[in-house]
Amino acid sequence: MERRGFIKSLGAGALAAGSLAVAPQAVAAKAEFKWKMITSWPKNFPVLGTNANYLAKNIEQMSGGRISIKVYGANELVPPFEVFDAVSRGTAQMGHSGAYYWKGKHEATQFFGAIPFGMSGQEVNAWLYYGGGMALWEELYDKFNLVPTATGNTGAQMAGWFRKDINSLADLKGLKMRIPGLGGEVLKRAGGTPVNLSGGELFTSLQSGAIDATEWVGPYNDLAFGFHKVAKNYYYPGWHEPGSTLEAIINKDAFAALPDDLQAIVKQACKSANMDMLAENVAKNNTALDTLVNKHQVQVKRLPDDVLVRLHGLSLEVVQEVADRDPFSRKVYESYTEFSQRASRWTDISEFAYLQARAL
Amino acid sequence: MERRGFIKSLGAGALAAGSLAVAPQAVAAKAEFKWKMITSWPKNFPVLGTNANYLAKNIEQMSGGRISIKVYGANELVPPFEVFDAVSRGTAQMGHSGAYYWKGKHEATQFFGAIPFGMSGQEVNAWLYYGGGMALWEELYDKFNLVPTATGNTGAQMAGWFRKDINSLADLKGLKMRIPGLGGEVLKRAGGTPVNLSGGELFTSLQSGAIDATEWVGPYNDLAFGFHKVAKNYYYPGWHEPGSTLEAIINKDAFAALPDDLQAIVKQACKSANMDMLAENVAKNNTALDTLVNKHQVQVKRLPDDVLVRLHGLSLEVVQEVADRDPFSRKVYESYTEFSQRASRWTDISEFAYLQARAL
Repeated sequence: MERRGFIKSLGAGALAAGSLAVAPQAVAAKAEFKWKMITSWPKNFPVLGTNANYLAKNIEQMSGGRISIKVYGANELVPPFEVFDAVSRGTAQMGHSGAYYWKGKHEATQFFGAIPFGMSGQEVNAWLYYGGGMALWEELYDKFNLVPTATGNTGAQMAGWFRKDINSLADLKGLKMRIPGLGGEVLKRAGGTPVNLSGGELFTSLQSGAIDATEWVGPYNDLAFGFHKVAKNYYYPGWHEPGSTLEAIINKDAFAALPDDLQAIVKQACKSANMDMLAENVAKNNTALDTLVNKHQVQVKRLPDDVLVRLHGLSLEVVQEVADRDPFSRKVYESYTEFSQRASRWTDISEFAYLQARAL
Repeated sequence: MERRGFIKSLGAGALAAGSLAVAPQAVAAKAEFKWKMITSWPKNFPVLGTNANYLAKNIEQMSGGRISIKVYGANELVPPFEVFDAVSRGTAQMGHSGAYYWKGKHEATQFFGAIPFGMSGQEVNAWLYYGGGMALWEELYDKFNLVPTATGNTGAQMAGWFRKDINSLADLKGLKMRIPGLGGEVLKRAGGTPVNLSGGELFTSLQSGAIDATEWVGPYNDLAFGFHKVAKNYYYPGWHEPGSTLEAIINKDAFAALPDDLQAIVKQACKSANMDMLAENVAKNNTALDTLVNKHQVQVKRLPDDVLVRLHGLSLEVVQEVADRDPFSRKVYESYTEFSQRASRWTDISEFAYLQARAL
């Protein structure tokens, strides 16, 4: 669901309409800490932008207004992909974004965002909170003067919208698909042609046939985008983003300046928002899926086994290469991989086995 | 994982050793609100008791000590299954328990605990927070002067420990199994004999052959109990408890007496603890499973298809009968069922389809 291009392509006009300050004036007036939260999403963008609003509102309420937080949409204060740097240097005290955008800062950031054929959302949270993942994330971001938190999860995404059928591995050859990041690299090795397009170009590119396919997120976000009008094949599963984590990042100095109670409030609010976004995605995707299928006659199709097996093998290869780039990336890779292997053994006989039983 | 008998069988001596007040004296001294949290678990009981401690600690920290909470294990202040009544009448301001214990108060409580062949933990949270579930829960508990919150989830449990193999539906005939509640009723209709035994009797009953099988929770809690010493067949999936919700309940008057900021703190702390317990269960079960299999040579086996299909059919029947008992139970049943059907269609092509792809 990498939205880099999409967000870049949004004009200032589109954003201005959604510009509502979250902090009421009364609250801001007595605030001991007046914070800015910059985000990589358009203001009030469904799920992502609204989760940032929810987070800000909860911190304000819990602190009795001692912290006021004004939420800024992408480009309102800084461009969407300068959130990391801007919070790092203190232009804003807080940011709401995704770690997979910061590969240019450090390769290891990708493990805290989305890993093709990696852990599910539920497994990722277990790794972060009880498997050492959060400590590694903190160690990594500390170098950038940031305190990271896991704030939101998409759950398993969809594989994307395709103009033609994918019946076998052969159908990936030459496939022009908009799929960025590690997933794009995997597609390339499978013979496809990953294309980078801004979100604003996606719809018309798919309509004209300039691209054969595009991934996005899941039914709720995809329905709003209207992809069903130009492609009827909606493929699953989202092998490239099986449980992507979003992040709220806090400037380390701003965090250190808070008394203990307000530090606890900020951390707990992020953990609650993490739970909230996953629940929202599950609830809203299921309703949107009904609409896509029953109202818009979208064909929901599964990628064939040979395609999935090949993409899985290539994903392991691509992710392992991230570990080869530097010692810290290797350390995170090893923690992630070791936990993932154990977690999947438990998932196989618990969550997965239950879902199989229910489907019999 | 109904622990009624287990907890009843625990002596005062066993509990006394674990009696540590969570609130430091310094915090309690300046507290504006000195609360008691009574629980249905032995003090510091892994995951359940420690989640109650985590919740109390977070509320204290976030409130800067304005709320102090002393956590009581089962039987320290009231017996484990008087938590609901005691919080309702204000003996304690808060309780940590499970809604499935309160069937005697109202049949509908069962939908907020565990439903055989019901929703997964992730689906349940979507229903509660974004599908109207929480509002129904609040409506139900309001009659009892209580504010409910979802505070913890076990994730999918195990089917239990069996002394003999279950190769077909015929093997359930006459099977003496400790399995309480709706799951027990389902087993009975499949020809088995559900037995109610206190937790303290479980180990010796299984050892002597007085019972053929028992369910409990999952690897982490089961390992501590030592069932692997007297039964080597560890069956999955936990069809009777696919994602059980735990609860923190608050006395309505005590909650109303809090200023807005402290109310927000209590609610958000519960939501964060809800996320935390699921993560802890996933992380610790996977490690314990390794120990059971590799160190204790436990045989992990899957219930056969015909058994699962039959139990599923009977579960739908048994759960539907709960709806027949009164109008409010029907209202909750209809909300739960309608959401569950939609949610499972999304789960099938997201979470479930991804886990299938990963397993290819």
